[in-house]
Amino acid sequence: MTAPEDSPASVVPPLRRRGEPMRRAVLSAAVELLSREGLAGATVAAVARAAGVHETSVYRRWRTRENLILDALTSELDSALPIPDTGRVREDLLAFFDRLARLLGTPQGHALLRLSVERDDTLDDRRGPYWRDRLDRAVVMVRRGVERGELAPGTDPGLLVEAVSGPLFVRALLSRAPLDEALVTGLVDLALDGARPGRPAGS
Amino acid sequence: MTAPEDSPASVVPPLRRRGEPMRRAVLSAAVELLSREGLAGATVAAVARAAGVHETSVYRRWRTRENLILDALTSELDSALPIPDTGRVREDLLAFFDRLARLLGTPQGHALLRLSVERDDTLDDRRGPYWRDRLDRAVVMVRRGVERGELAPGTDPGLLVEAVSGPLFVRALLSRAPLDEALVTGLVDLALDGARPGRPAGS
Repeated sequence: MTAPEDSPASVVPPLRRRGEPMRRAVLSAAVELLSREGLAGATVAAVARAAGVHETSVYRRWRTRENLILDALTSELDSALPIPDTGRVREDLLAFFDRLARLLGTPQGHALLRLSVERDDTLDDRRGPYWRDRLDRAVVMVRRGVERGELAPGTDPGLLVEAVSGPLFVRALLSRAPLDEALVTGLVDLALDGARPGRPAGS
Repeated sequence: MTAPEDSPASVVPPLRRRGEPMRRAVLSAAVELLSREGLAGATVAAVARAAGVHETSVYRRWRTRENLILDALTSELDSALPIPDTGRVREDLLAFFDRLARLLGTPQGHALLRLSVERDDTLDDRRGPYWRDRLDRAVVMVRRGVERGELAPGTDPGLLVEAVSGPLFVRALLSRAPLDEALVTGLVDLALDGARPGRPAGS
């Protein structure tokens, strides 16, 4: 038996996997290929081969390569950004945004961000929501800081989250400058303390 | 005489424009098409038709559609972001970032930003530098604020510029949330004054 596409010795004959087992096998193969070879390497043919399923089954379920990749990445990254609750707003923000910076530095996080900014009518409307949901949840850290009196009552929680996350997204997408802990600390302290003189940073 | 592509009554026969006049006609037609029809409408064929030059002349000079568009946008937007010098750091920052926000809201600015984040090996390495140059120049506003004692001596000028510009880029690319004056004011005041209590905003 020969596969229709190029068939190295390692090719596993497609199985008659269906439903949830098929879905899990395909998504996990997609994540694995994305991590190893990036967006370009994660073709539907390659993912189907690696998962041991028919390419047509993949198309039947996900319709397009982009939908498959988004499903794979959002499933994979679903639990990647927990909201800390240390009792101190600065610690919470540092922990959360440090994880966000590290996520954007991984091949999976970077691929999801790139797909999120690509305008493509074949994509389900699932990209925006992934990041919006996570940043919306981050807002509770700021609200708790306001409730504890650590932050001014008039603080706009969404704006503070945007001010710290924005530069991280821009470095990942545009400038390709490093996403390190010093950057996160600098951004959090700027948002908390501002650049005016006479206030100790990191308080 | 018939053009090889679809030829409406308004088609101007290609001229034998060369050198700088040809370049200017093509770039101005590209900017005009980008503004009216967006990235998708600015094909090489449409630009050449609108400029009244041969399509082959365009390819000979710019090689790819993307290079042409980048050249058009960076020429058009070259003087779009002057650095103000009012003597007050808050006024300077508000004026500069308000112009940046408005630029990102125009079809041309938005198109240039989209092209800037697309990874494409056929593009000259000219996208990153456009935004980096402008943000690098913005750093002088912060330095002057430090010199005047309006900002703390330890202020990181690049970080402050990133903290205000980052959310503007992210709104333009990712969330599509509005880029208005209230946003710019909120971001500038957060970067200057921080979110800690007890400090009057907008001072």
